[in-house]
Amino acid sequence: MKSIETAAKPSETTLDPENWDDFRTRAHAMLDAAIDKMQAASDGRVWTPVPEALKETLKTGLPTEGRGAAASDAAIMALLPHGIGNTHPRFMGWVHGAGTPSNMVAEIAGAAINANAGGRDHAAIYVERQLIGWMRDLFGFPQEASGLVVSGTSMATIVALKVARDAALAFRSRTAGVGAARLVGYTSAQAHACNARAFDLLGLGSDALRMVPVDDDFRMDEAALRALIEQDRAKGDVPFVVIGTAGSVNTGAIDDLEELSALAGQEGLWLHVDGAFGATGIMSDRLRPLLAGIEKADSIAFDFHKWLHVNYEAGFVLVRDGAAHMEAFSGRPDYLKRTERGMAAASPWPVEFGPELSRGFRALKVWAQIAEHGTSKLGAAITRNCEQTVYLSQLVDADDKLHRMAPVVTSICCFRYIAPGFSEEALDALNADIVIRLQERGIAAPSTTRLNARLAIRVNITNHRTRFSDLDLLVDAIGKVAGELVAELK
Amino acid sequence: MKSIETAAKPSETTLDPENWDDFRTRAHAMLDAAIDKMQAASDGRVWTPVPEALKETLKTGLPTEGRGAAASDAAIMALLPHGIGNTHPRFMGWVHGAGTPSNMVAEIAGAAINANAGGRDHAAIYVERQLIGWMRDLFGFPQEASGLVVSGTSMATIVALKVARDAALAFRSRTAGVGAARLVGYTSAQAHACNARAFDLLGLGSDALRMVPVDDDFRMDEAALRALIEQDRAKGDVPFVVIGTAGSVNTGAIDDLEELSALAGQEGLWLHVDGAFGATGIMSDRLRPLLAGIEKADSIAFDFHKWLHVNYEAGFVLVRDGAAHMEAFSGRPDYLKRTERGMAAASPWPVEFGPELSRGFRALKVWAQIAEHGTSKLGAAITRNCEQTVYLSQLVDADDKLHRMAPVVTSICCFRYIAPGFSEEALDALNADIVIRLQERGIAAPSTTRLNARLAIRVNITNHRTRFSDLDLLVDAIGKVAGELVAELK
Repeated sequence: MKSIETAAKPSETTLDPENWDDFRTRAHAMLDAAIDKMQAASDGRVWTPVPEALKETLKTGLPTEGRGAAASDAAIMALLPHGIGNTHPRFMGWVHGAGTPSNMVAEIAGAAINANAGGRDHAAIYVERQLIGWMRDLFGFPQEASGLVVSGTSMATIVALKVARDAALAFRSRTAGVGAARLVGYTSAQAHACNARAFDLLGLGSDALRMVPVDDDFRMDEAALRALIEQDRAKGDVPFVVIGTAGSVNTGAIDDLEELSALAGQEGLWLHVDGAFGATGIMSDRLRPLLAGIEKADSIAFDFHKWLHVNYEAGFVLVRDGAAHMEAFSGRPDYLKRTERGMAAASPWPVEFGPELSRGFRALKVWAQIAEHGTSKLGAAITRNCEQTVYLSQLVDADDKLHRMAPVVTSICCFRYIAPGFSEEALDALNADIVIRLQERGIAAPSTTRLNARLAIRVNITNHRTRFSDLDLLVDAIGKVAGELVAELK
Repeated sequence: MKSIETAAKPSETTLDPENWDDFRTRAHAMLDAAIDKMQAASDGRVWTPVPEALKETLKTGLPTEGRGAAASDAAIMALLPHGIGNTHPRFMGWVHGAGTPSNMVAEIAGAAINANAGGRDHAAIYVERQLIGWMRDLFGFPQEASGLVVSGTSMATIVALKVARDAALAFRSRTAGVGAARLVGYTSAQAHACNARAFDLLGLGSDALRMVPVDDDFRMDEAALRALIEQDRAKGDVPFVVIGTAGSVNTGAIDDLEELSALAGQEGLWLHVDGAFGATGIMSDRLRPLLAGIEKADSIAFDFHKWLHVNYEAGFVLVRDGAAHMEAFSGRPDYLKRTERGMAAASPWPVEFGPELSRGFRALKVWAQIAEHGTSKLGAAITRNCEQTVYLSQLVDADDKLHRMAPVVTSICCFRYIAPGFSEEALDALNADIVIRLQERGIAAPSTTRLNARLAIRVNITNHRTRFSDLDLLVDAIGKVAGELVAELK
């Protein structure tokens, strides 16, 4: 039949293990080390910095020859103690989730499936569709709403605002660019930076996102918003979106979404809700009433890796008008054309709803987390965190050396230590030092922010491992550390 | 001391296992199932569609009460057989990596660390820095070059082109938007869609990316490119970037990067290289010479989850001018301010080089893959795939019923079955049906594309498990299936 000249075939060595029994031993050993770490999550220091010696080992050049399995695993295991501490009950800095051991079980399966969830007809597609359906249910969105699992709220915001941008320009912007459209949007001065960053990325420029002043509760001031819109229209700018915040990053404030929804309707604006950590509060009986109006949004961006404790990273964008969502992202080249049958079936594909063509099977761990634990238990953990934050605020209010700097609504309590005779600037420095010392000693990990130009100790509790007693310990430690620092300064 | 009224503390149940021994058993069982699947990767069908009954189970509403560990794991295990098949040696559709079992070991550790690699001072930051250093070494980039692990080439392209866009507009675009700047770019008509999609996302519009005709080898035609640039300048448009392709998605062609680099220098353009799967070919002795010039690029976008077989998903963007890269993305809000000490040290942070603030520790599995196996072995697997592609092209050329449609340069061979008496359109349909039948029978998984308007069977071999014998089997199966289909049509 065929007569083909071929070069000698080189050894057909794969990248698979040479010995599967050895591999099994190796993988189970790593799993035990991982479980040991998880089981001890509440013990010891919150944060253990990477030792200088370990940093040095990470400065070698590109390896030509591999170091093999044993050395590789030893190197990986050396990293295990040196996370930022978000799995510890006294990690209270920034807004991180604490993760769950059960989620690792899903991740093991995900690694074996090793799916590209960009499209085609396989399990990942159907799991993500179920998850999208669940998110419609959770937020009271209609059947025609669409969604996409993304890395987090920054990406979700980019996706949502691109749909809003393109819808405002009759989708001509996809081919013609934004040109001189003068689109402008509005959000609270307390909104997360990802919103202005999205304006920058999308070619509108961050200045086109107006920062609306907030009231004493750090919520967007509606009268100020209306005045800005009127002013912009008078100038010839084109308002197209208002971004409500459901859980602000500094204080946890939730904008009045009912009011924003009414305003967006009157003004013909797209209502986007940045619910990075707050939106999933809808699972909590305590927070649900505060989120009223979110069901009327045009889009919502939020994270699963924060208050639902899915392992990093997983966020979501939900869009009311699924057709507009697809119109802003679809367009499949020849090599990805739709088919009715075969592996390229199962349209529409996720690539038609976002910028990524290669996408891991992140939906698996989110789906597994919600299915295993249920919204009731996940919501109860959120409620408990809110109660703990109120408890902390009571400790702060009862302590005459501590001054609370914002109302407590969700998971965040901002306050500072007041030392008599210190200027406001000296108190800024003192409170920054208090936080760093708490972190360096591994006692607790609050972070800092600025409110009305003053530095605040910012405690955020989105952590299912935090206990009420951890808050007693925190307040005691602040008092002790502050006392030391004040004494050192004298 | 304190006298605080607190509500009764609710039960402090976490989302951790109630019984850690049970959890250990459960996790090890999932790991064994995952290893069983991996060990059998070369057996059986390439693709087993999701059964209708399983799809039905995935249509239930949002679960209030969790189903618990046993039911959750059973549901996850039911998904294991229903990937798209990219772990199988005869998956030859699209460009997917095949994954490695060793990578799962890194993923287990990653799940336990559960890092947000957006910033702060912890192991994930230092591992990613080492990886960035390795990528500088790999591509001969200078010390001041910067990089970022992203989800894949689509995201890498968005990041790179944003830097190019903003650099062209003196970074005023970040705040002021792109306005009426009339920036235009150039790439080959065979370039990947992610480039035009990035132009759309970035507000420039996909029309602003000119599609330059290709030569008979499907490489960008330099004379046509020069003519287009001249024409655009005459119109008042502002050329700012040229995008070279290192491994085109349809045929695997590599543009002449030396030539493009010289042209970019003369014309004052940013040279971006889309090396989604081809760039890592630099580890292969066979492909390295074809990539000459890539070391002069201003930016490179590529995937680790393709030809380096890192588990989905992981890509990378490398930028020669690290300062420009940071200027296009930096800007940290109050709650993320730089500190010299404490957990918020270790500046600069990855968030200053890309759009994502929450970022999983993807760098771990990439770093582990390269460190364990080394570039020499990873490169040899790439070389073998290229030799296999040449072998396939020899089989095709030796078969008088098969007509090859493009030169073989890297991992892709495009051809079609010719049945006497069939019109070109009928051959399009026949070849599409051949591919679908091969997929549906689980025999092999090529995909299709169009070249010069005609449908091609497209075989891509970026798979460390593919054996030369799989290609004999493929060509035999195509002949048999084609014979059946032709007989059915008569």
